[in-house]
Amino acid sequence: VKDVDTKSLKVIGMVSEVSASGISAVLAEIHGTGSNTRVEPRLYQNYPLRSKMLDAISVALRPEESRADFIAALNFALGELFAAAAIDLAKEAGVGIEFVDLIGIQGQTIWHSTEQTEVGGMWTFSTFQIGEPTVVSERTGVTVVADFRAADVAASCRGAPLSPYGDFLLFRSANRSRAVQNIGGISSVTYIPSGGKLDQIVAFDTGPGSMLMDAVVFLLTEGKKRSDIDGKLAMAGTVNRVMLSHLMEHPFVQKRPPKAVGHMEFGVQLAEQIISQWCDVSPEDIVATVTAFVAHSVRRSYERWLPKMPDDVIVSGVGARNPALMQKLSEALPHTKIYRSDDFGIDAEAKEALVIALLASEAIHGQPTSLPTATGAQQPVILGKIIPGRNYKELKGI
Amino acid sequence: VKDVDTKSLKVIGMVSEVSASGISAVLAEIHGTGSNTRVEPRLYQNYPLRSKMLDAISVALRPEESRADFIAALNFALGELFAAAAIDLAKEAGVGIEFVDLIGIQGQTIWHSTEQTEVGGMWTFSTFQIGEPTVVSERTGVTVVADFRAADVAASCRGAPLSPYGDFLLFRSANRSRAVQNIGGISSVTYIPSGGKLDQIVAFDTGPGSMLMDAVVFLLTEGKKRSDIDGKLAMAGTVNRVMLSHLMEHPFVQKRPPKAVGHMEFGVQLAEQIISQWCDVSPEDIVATVTAFVAHSVRRSYERWLPKMPDDVIVSGVGARNPALMQKLSEALPHTKIYRSDDFGIDAEAKEALVIALLASEAIHGQPTSLPTATGAQQPVILGKIIPGRNYKELKGI
Repeated sequence: VKDVDTKSLKVIGMVSEVSASGISAVLAEIHGTGSNTRVEPRLYQNYPLRSKMLDAISVALRPEESRADFIAALNFALGELFAAAAIDLAKEAGVGIEFVDLIGIQGQTIWHSTEQTEVGGMWTFSTFQIGEPTVVSERTGVTVVADFRAADVAASCRGAPLSPYGDFLLFRSANRSRAVQNIGGISSVTYIPSGGKLDQIVAFDTGPGSMLMDAVVFLLTEGKKRSDIDGKLAMAGTVNRVMLSHLMEHPFVQKRPPKAVGHMEFGVQLAEQIISQWCDVSPEDIVATVTAFVAHSVRRSYERWLPKMPDDVIVSGVGARNPALMQKLSEALPHTKIYRSDDFGIDAEAKEALVIALLASEAIHGQPTSLPTATGAQQPVILGKIIPGRNYKELKGI
Repeated sequence: VKDVDTKSLKVIGMVSEVSASGISAVLAEIHGTGSNTRVEPRLYQNYPLRSKMLDAISVALRPEESRADFIAALNFALGELFAAAAIDLAKEAGVGIEFVDLIGIQGQTIWHSTEQTEVGGMWTFSTFQIGEPTVVSERTGVTVVADFRAADVAASCRGAPLSPYGDFLLFRSANRSRAVQNIGGISSVTYIPSGGKLDQIVAFDTGPGSMLMDAVVFLLTEGKKRSDIDGKLAMAGTVNRVMLSHLMEHPFVQKRPPKAVGHMEFGVQLAEQIISQWCDVSPEDIVATVTAFVAHSVRRSYERWLPKMPDDVIVSGVGARNPALMQKLSEALPHTKIYRSDDFGIDAEAKEALVIALLASEAIHGQPTSLPTATGAQQPVILGKIIPGRNYKELKGI
C-alpha cells in the first residue's frame, strides 16, 4: 500500500459498448478536482470481446430471452473481462496495477427505459448496466467507481448522456462555442457556449450512431462484415434522398430535449425495417443513406435545439474513424469547423472512457457530476457507486 | 448539511426478505469502528410489502420467468420502497432523515449460484440482489452502502453468510462460547469461541428456515395462511420420525462447510415435494415435522461442524417468534442455554438489519468486514458499494 498523492491520481476509465465490439480502456493522470481538473491521457487500448461473449451480450439485449440467472452470470463474467483489461492496460503502460489509484467503469447497458413501466403496482423508469465492479476491485485491489447511469435515472427519470461534465472539463473554450459530438453506438452532443459555465451546457442524444450503421452492414453482407470499415461501402454508394427524408421523420429526431435514445431504438430492428422497406435500393446506396442519416440527425439537432450553431464541432467515438461519415458531417455543417477529438490530444475512441475516468475521480472527491440543465433533474448529484478496494482508506482522505 | 460527529453515526440498516413479507428497518447509533465499535439500536420497524409487490418478487425468483426489463423495473421500484421505509423510520424515531448519516441496504436476492455456470465461453459463480440504492440516496440525500453479497462472491466464489463480522461485534463474550443462530428465510450460524478472536469464527448456512416452513403452510392451507403464526399448527401436530429422518438426509445438511444455501434450495419446490410424498400424513404433523427439521438441521450442524457445542445459542430472525420452533430447538440442544437476541437488547427481527447497518458503517471507515475463515476467501475485503449522497464529502472524512 502506498501513499496517495493528493494532487494527482492514476485513473483507468473503461467502457463496454457492443458497437465497439469490446472494452475501451484508457489510463490517465488526473490532477485536481472541479473546474481545476487537469487530465493527461497516457495510454488507450481496445480489448475486443470474443464472438461467444458478443453472442451472449446479444442475447442479454433481447429482453424476451434474457433471464435473471443468465444476466447474473454474464454480469460476473464481464467483471472478469474488465479486470483483465485493467491489469493489462496498466502493464502495457509500464505502471503496474498496484500503482493505479482508481478505476472507473461504464458497464454494458442491457436495458434502458424511456417510458415508465408498471411492476408490482408501481410505475417506474429504469436502467440496467452489467459488468460486476466488485470483481474488478477484488482482482486488482483498486477502488472502483461504476454504475454511473443509475444515479442519473434516479434523479432525472429518463436519464441523459453521462458525458457533459467530462466534456466541459476537456473541451471548453474561452472564445469558441463548441459541440462535443460523440458518435458511438448511438450519438449524443454536449454544447458548451463560448466562455461558458457549467450551468449553460446543453446535452442530449442526437439519435442514431454506429449501432444502426453496423446492423445494416451486418444484415446486407449476411454477417460477413460487422461494420463499414473506412466507410468504403458508403463511399461506393449514393445517398437516396427519398429514403433519407423518410428516415429523418423518425419520432426521436423530431423530439424536444431533454431526450435519451431508448433501448435498441436505433439498432437491429430498425435496420431490418429499413432493409425490407427499401429492398429495391442497392446495398451501397442504403449504407450511404444510413450514414447520411447519422450526419443529418446531428445537423437537425443543432439547428433546432442548440441556442446557436457551434463554432467548432469535436467528433469522438468510432464514428470519427469513418471517413464517409466525417465527410457527410462536413457537408451537412458547412459553416462549422469540424475536428476529431484526436486534434485535442484525445484519441476519439478513448474519449468516452476518459470521461468515465473523470467521473470516477470526481466521485471520490465527493464532487457532483450530473448537470441538471442536461438531465432535467432538480439538483446535481454525484454519479457512480464506489467499490472500496484495498486502497480505499487512503484514497477517501483526498 | 451538518458536521458529522467522527465518533458516532446515525445509521439505518434495511433488509428485504420474502419470508418476512417486507422490509426490516432499524435505526441505530454506531460509535467507533473495528473492535471498538459500540451499537445502540434506537427503533425497529417492519414495512410489509403489498401483495402485488410480493407477487412480482415471486416472479423474479423464478429464473425462467424473470426477464431483464422486468428485473430492471423491479430493481427501481424496490429502491423507492426502501427510500420510503428509511424516511418513515427516521420520522418515527423523531430524528428526521436529514439527520441520518448513513443507510445500509441488503436488497432482495433473486439469484445466487452455488455452482459455476457457463456464459459466453466463461465459467463463473454469481449472485444478484435488487433494490436500487441510488434511488434511496437520491430520495433521502443520505449516503448509502449496498450490495454486500457481490464482493463476497467475487472474493470467495460461493459466498457465505454476511453476518459473522456483525455478530462478532454484537455478541462476543469473554467467557462463553456462542452460536448466533439466525432463522430467517434460510438459517445460518456464526460460532464465536469464548474470548474468541475474529479469525477463530466459524460461520455457514445451517439449512432450512422460515421460507420452507411458510411454503408448506401456504400450500397445505391452499393460500389461506402465509405462515404458521405463533407455531399453532406445529404445536397441534406430532413429529413424524420417519419423515424427519428422510428430510435430514438432504444433501445440503450432510455437506461440509464452507457452504451457502443455493437459490430456492429450501423453498417452494421442496415444500411441494414434501407434501406430495407424504400425502398420508396430516397437515399439522407435516408442519410439526418440517419445524423439527429446521431445529434438527441446526443441531446436526453444531455436532458435526462446530469445534465444540456452544455454551449459548442466541436465536434471531422470524424463527425466534415461533414458539414451536424454539421449543423444538430447546429439545434438540438440551445442554445449551437458548436465548433470543431480544435478551441482549436486540429485537430478533431487527438483528440482520442491524448487521447491515454495521457493515455500512465499516465500509465508510474503510474497514474490511468479510472473514476469510467464514468465506474461504484469501483475504478480508470491504463489503458493499458506496453510493455517495449529499453528505458524502463530510462523511468520507471520518
